[in-house]
Amino acid sequence: MGMIGGGQDAFIGAIHRLAANMDGLIELSCGALSINPETAIASGRALFLPESRTYTSYEEMIKSEAALPSEERIDFVTIVTPNFAHFAPAMMALEHGFNVVIEKPITFSLEEAKLLQDKVNETGLTLCLTHTYSGYPMVKQAKAMVKEGKLGKIRKVWVEYPQGWLSRLSEREGNAQAAWRTDPKKSGKSSVMGDIGTHAAHLAEYITGSSITAVCAELNTLVDGRVMDDDGAVLLKFENGAKGVLMASQVAAGEENALKIRVYGENGGIEWLQHDPNSLIVKWLTEPTQILRAGSNYSHLSSFATHNCRTPGGHPEGYLEAFANIYRNFALTLQCKLQGTEPSPEMLDFPTVVDGVRGMAFIDNVVASSESDLKWTPFVV
Amino acid sequence: MGMIGGGQDAFIGAIHRLAANMDGLIELSCGALSINPETAIASGRALFLPESRTYTSYEEMIKSEAALPSEERIDFVTIVTPNFAHFAPAMMALEHGFNVVIEKPITFSLEEAKLLQDKVNETGLTLCLTHTYSGYPMVKQAKAMVKEGKLGKIRKVWVEYPQGWLSRLSEREGNAQAAWRTDPKKSGKSSVMGDIGTHAAHLAEYITGSSITAVCAELNTLVDGRVMDDDGAVLLKFENGAKGVLMASQVAAGEENALKIRVYGENGGIEWLQHDPNSLIVKWLTEPTQILRAGSNYSHLSSFATHNCRTPGGHPEGYLEAFANIYRNFALTLQCKLQGTEPSPEMLDFPTVVDGVRGMAFIDNVVASSESDLKWTPFVV
Amino acid sequence: MGMIGGGQDAFIGAIHRLAANMDGLIELSCGALSINPETAIASGRALFLPESRTYTSYEEMIKSEAALPSEERIDFVTIVTPNFAHFAPAMMALEHGFNVVIEKPITFSLEEAKLLQDKVNETGLTLCLTHTYSGYPMVKQAKAMVKEGKLGKIRKVWVEYPQGWLSRLSEREGNAQAAWRTDPKKSGKSSVMGDIGTHAAHLAEYITGSSITAVCAELNTLVDGRVMDDDGAVLLKFENGAKGVLMASQVAAGEENALKIRVYGENGGIEWLQHDPNSLIVKWLTEPTQILRAGSNYSHLSSFATHNCRTPGGHPEGYLEAFANIYRNFALTLQCKLQGTEPSPEMLDFPTVVDGVRGMAFIDNVVASSESDLKWTPFVV
Amino acid sequence: MGMIGGGQDAFIGAIHRLAANMDGLIELSCGALSINPETAIASGRALFLPESRTYTSYEEMIKSEAALPSEERIDFVTIVTPNFAHFAPAMMALEHGFNVVIEKPITFSLEEAKLLQDKVNETGLTLCLTHTYSGYPMVKQAKAMVKEGKLGKIRKVWVEYPQGWLSRLSEREGNAQAAWRTDPKKSGKSSVMGDIGTHAAHLAEYITGSSITAVCAELNTLVDGRVMDDDGAVLLKFENGAKGVLMASQVAAGEENALKIRVYGENGGIEWLQHDPNSLIVKWLTEPTQILRAGSNYSHLSSFATHNCRTPGGHPEGYLEAFANIYRNFALTLQCKLQGTEPSPEMLDFPTVVDGVRGMAFIDNVVASSESDLKWTPFVV
Repeated sequence: MGMIGGGQDAFIGAIHRLAANMDGLIELSCGALSINPETAIASGRALFLPESRTYTSYEEMIKSEAALPSEERIDFVTIVTPNFAHFAPAMMALEHGFNVVIEKPITFSLEEAKLLQDKVNETGLTLCLTHTYSGYPMVKQAKAMVKEGKLGKIRKVWVEYPQGWLSRLSEREGNAQAAWRTDPKKSGKSSVMGDIGTHAAHLAEYITGSSITAVCAELNTLVDGRVMDDDGAVLLKFENGAKGVLMASQVAAGEENALKIRVYGENGGIEWLQHDPNSLIVKWLTEPTQILRAGSNYSHLSSFATHNCRTPGGHPEGYLEAFANIYRNFALTLQCKLQGTEPSPEMLDFPTVVDGVRGMAFIDNVVASSESDLKWTPFVV
Repeated sequence: MGMIGGGQDAFIGAIHRLAANMDGLIELSCGALSINPETAIASGRALFLPESRTYTSYEEMIKSEAALPSEERIDFVTIVTPNFAHFAPAMMALEHGFNVVIEKPITFSLEEAKLLQDKVNETGLTLCLTHTYSGYPMVKQAKAMVKEGKLGKIRKVWVEYPQGWLSRLSEREGNAQAAWRTDPKKSGKSSVMGDIGTHAAHLAEYITGSSITAVCAELNTLVDGRVMDDDGAVLLKFENGAKGVLMASQVAAGEENALKIRVYGENGGIEWLQHDPNSLIVKWLTEPTQILRAGSNYSHLSSFATHNCRTPGGHPEGYLEAFANIYRNFALTLQCKLQGTEPSPEMLDFPTVVDGVRGMAFIDNVVASSESDLKWTPFVV
Repeated sequence: MGMIGGGQDAFIGAIHRLAANMDGLIELSCGALSINPETAIASGRALFLPESRTYTSYEEMIKSEAALPSEERIDFVTIVTPNFAHFAPAMMALEHGFNVVIEKPITFSLEEAKLLQDKVNETGLTLCLTHTYSGYPMVKQAKAMVKEGKLGKIRKVWVEYPQGWLSRLSEREGNAQAAWRTDPKKSGKSSVMGDIGTHAAHLAEYITGSSITAVCAELNTLVDGRVMDDDGAVLLKFENGAKGVLMASQVAAGEENALKIRVYGENGGIEWLQHDPNSLIVKWLTEPTQILRAGSNYSHLSSFATHNCRTPGGHPEGYLEAFANIYRNFALTLQCKLQGTEPSPEMLDFPTVVDGVRGMAFIDNVVASSESDLKWTPFVV
Repeated sequence: MGMIGGGQDAFIGAIHRLAANMDGLIELSCGALSINPETAIASGRALFLPESRTYTSYEEMIKSEAALPSEERIDFVTIVTPNFAHFAPAMMALEHGFNVVIEKPITFSLEEAKLLQDKVNETGLTLCLTHTYSGYPMVKQAKAMVKEGKLGKIRKVWVEYPQGWLSRLSEREGNAQAAWRTDPKKSGKSSVMGDIGTHAAHLAEYITGSSITAVCAELNTLVDGRVMDDDGAVLLKFENGAKGVLMASQVAAGEENALKIRVYGENGGIEWLQHDPNSLIVKWLTEPTQILRAGSNYSHLSSFATHNCRTPGGHPEGYLEAFANIYRNFALTLQCKLQGTEPSPEMLDFPTVVDGVRGMAFIDNVVASSESDLKWTPFVV
């Protein structure tokens, strides 16, 4: 693995490294860790990278690595730069034959995402998008239960993502994260939807197995002086006839990262909360509520859940493990490809460029709806 | 107290009697408990009513009671009939000098509600609407904290009311409750909003102390064959600039009565869930989350909360106690009026005809919005 | 009903009145509400008792009521005085033909309790002990599940009762409740076991349907200057071979009234917490955990649970309803006796003098064990 | 790092590798992964170990590694064999100058533990014991709050560890874990106390900062046919005057790994549950309960907590991260030693041979008490 971005002081780069390290399948071999050469070099040293493979630009890294003998060169690059700087290195990596991992949202614009999708299709390479939350085993369990028809026809989806960290004008108080996320030149068309709304939309489509077909959205800027939205709500229609509500806020003061989804069908509903990720609450119309638990040994767990657990029930796995599941499945898939074998459906169950394109389209459609006086905007990609 | 409706097999009438009984302030003295004379008489007997005050029509009851000497006659009537049969007895009771308690929604139509409001204003009598959920002490605590500015300026309201009891076409399977609630001739313009949406809207306005000024609504009928809506979502704008989302569903299979509200301001947010009504979760932007508990002896509790607790912390009070708080405050207010003293603000804190009018207007505005192609409908009363 | 004790400022008397009022089956007709005549009279007036039946001593009340014609006199007396003043009025009431309700613990000493038991057996009257917590529907559900063998052979019982209200030396700071409860002349041999430990022991025997046969106890006084114990732990052996641990503390600072019991058998376990009384958590060895809920309409609920619910699932019933269940079942049993019919097993399911004797024996045995250097003390009655 | 034990099919070895991998500070360089040579070799291959450093006995590994140049050889060995096979490799490693990590309990007998302690003292090497649960940040927060006197004088400790995995006679059904854990030749004097009771005792002493001075214990074998205990309860006295109860069970059917501790002082109490490890519930006598959360940015968190968090609040860290904290602090301490700098108190905060000796003494004292007819057994080391 070669990392682009993620130098000292960056947040998500360190998370990617923790996640990639976890299962002993992936090694950080090189990096272009910052656009600031000094930071790049210092960061490489701190991570025990050899000097020869500590690059000061992604272009240099991709070219140099591509020139190495195949058994020495990296298998993939990981892109953990701010949103506006995803596309160029991803495209260049694909063009030089490298598989790619990208932090979400996949790109700055829908157009860029589509270009990446074309390139992936053309090259046959694999692009993995780290929509962390669908990496949790109990989210996969929820998807499996919907797919198997346990809940009957799906009628209603409620997904919410409250955070409070932008409740003050932190972008003016030296918070670097807040600064780029609320800067339309770096973040994209919507801050709240780009940062967290796409996670919620991805989760809803992932679990229901159905696509959003129309949105009615309202984006708000609830902190005075902010130049981008920081809150929003979206009414949803799904392909399968279900209706939904998506709520995302970065100004829900006092909330941490309380992503939660509820999906109701004819026979019951499921509820999953990221703060208690090893439990899936399953409510039944005519039976007592059940709590399904990651790592348990009863027969209710789908192979998609158990494949993504490392420990027995009662040994909580968290955010890093969910993140690591994406890396692990991506790595197992690459391993199969290298060995010429067929990856299992469980291995292939990680977000790809297809999810990336839908995420960017979600942002575009929500912004368009929010600007419209009409209630419903058809979801176009 | 004289009861209109609430004979054997009715649900809410029994609840009203339990609530009215609880504090020993109110006695059931007479009733017109059913439009079916046999049921009326049998129900009166079961409730130990004297035969002479067991009436077979509300008209007879109101006239007969009004003819009694003032020290013998009832102080108020309680109306627990289906929605369509609220207005006539309420109006007649007011005209004959009786105070009135009505189960919500106050009437079948907004117009009727306004007529009642005029009559209340004209007579100076008291009309109490049993919006149960604002009778909980920790809801009152939430209101007090907002009012005192603890959360700062309010920015966002999320209120949800999931129930699952209409997940099947129960109205065709002999469920009497389901039958009248999904019958537009008995229930009103909207089933889901009349039955539970108004509770949610009331709670939001009650806690924030701010009025809804615009709605963007979608009502759905998610069970095939049903003739009224059974699910809905409403985006809200409030007078104070806050934005909101209201979600109500009777087809959230597996849910009981999970009314929940979250209100976020600049400094923090509050969360209250009816299933755990003695706790108020208070989240702070820069401090750890607190759990305020009904009946506790720390100084954080408002007099509006403590006035409505009967037991010390850790002795759970529930739905019937919340309901009884409304009756108790209404009775204490009447007592003061009779004694010529001024009721305390805590006593006066029960829903009245004003809330009833707003509830009916809420239903009308939501239905209008749901039928409109435009996103926002101004809230008109 | 005639009440002995429970005048103004008393805590538990008010609770008894609320509970007795609730279902409209019981009327407070007379009272000897205080040993202080002025308080007795003022309290009677506040409760709308007729002057003629507001007595200034229990002796006067029992004699006067016994002299009334049978259709006018009360059916039972309720004794809500401090522990040391339970026996005399109870015995006198039984001797005059009145049924009796007593707040627990039944008496000051085991010997007194046995005398009451003899008198009850002799007279055929009914004595009801208000061990509130076995009045909760989900506690009854737990008992039913154990009895039906759902959990298999019972192996382990953990019951705990943490309170924090005696964490300071409140008895020296004018807290009347604290003063009598920590006074050995008024409270009995043990404060913590008399006040709350007996509730825990009763719950354990009630749910398991098995008797404690040996104890290994340690009583502690953890607040300097206190003259009675305020904390304790007891290892338990049960008749059916199960082992148990009982923990009770009045100095668990910050705790309210967090009585909790867990019972494990071969196939699973149940968990019930008084702070969330409408849920019974059922854990299975080979199946996901279930949450059974009071008032639900699925078929898992025993008739003993449903008989004790007033409202549908999701309308929380609390401490007062549990208390009222005891009064209601007692009243229904008396009604059957008066009518010459057989009370149902569900009606008869309230604590009696038998539980009272076991409770007093529990206190005695725990105190004896605590004073012994030997590990185990056989449980003798 | 060189690993002894932990070959394919072993449970805890894989956990150690995940934990050691996580932070990129430690590399698995060699192993003697099984006493079965074929398994040892296959396991080494699966872990990408070089053949030359895949050993078939720990003796071979320690000797060979000690013979390598210092810059090539490992810094420490990790011992993840069953309990009976901890001592010999640990002693040999220390004698050859290697630091040591051992899975708990440290040895098979107290005597062995003391010998290791002597050797550690003699050599100045570092021995780290993986008592995972004190690696959680919110456990460290609890310890810090006690130490800072936030709770006042500590009065009461309740610690419980329910598991259900031995509810059946699994050791006869081919469960290898169950087989060795319930075999006195491999597990030690007590199964339940060796496996989980020591975790609970360590947690109690760690958080309170006080030592157990006397025990009153009962060990039970609750599954017919089992040859070791599978359940136990221990009353505790602490050096600081506090009293405690420790409960541990492997036959609490339906429980996963629900280690929980509550510590009460004069002013309040803390509660921590391993299933929700990122929350520390802090109850106050005169203030509302607070929920402190790992990774939060408010000022309430001790440096000992924040040092052990990798992600911001709301990104759950779990069992593997707690485990990794122990490895990370051990590695940082070794790093400082190598660099000749002083490790910070936060780095030094991992369990050592001292905790190992106390753990073994705990087992011995509990077994002695359980066999005694006297209530209290002084805790001797």
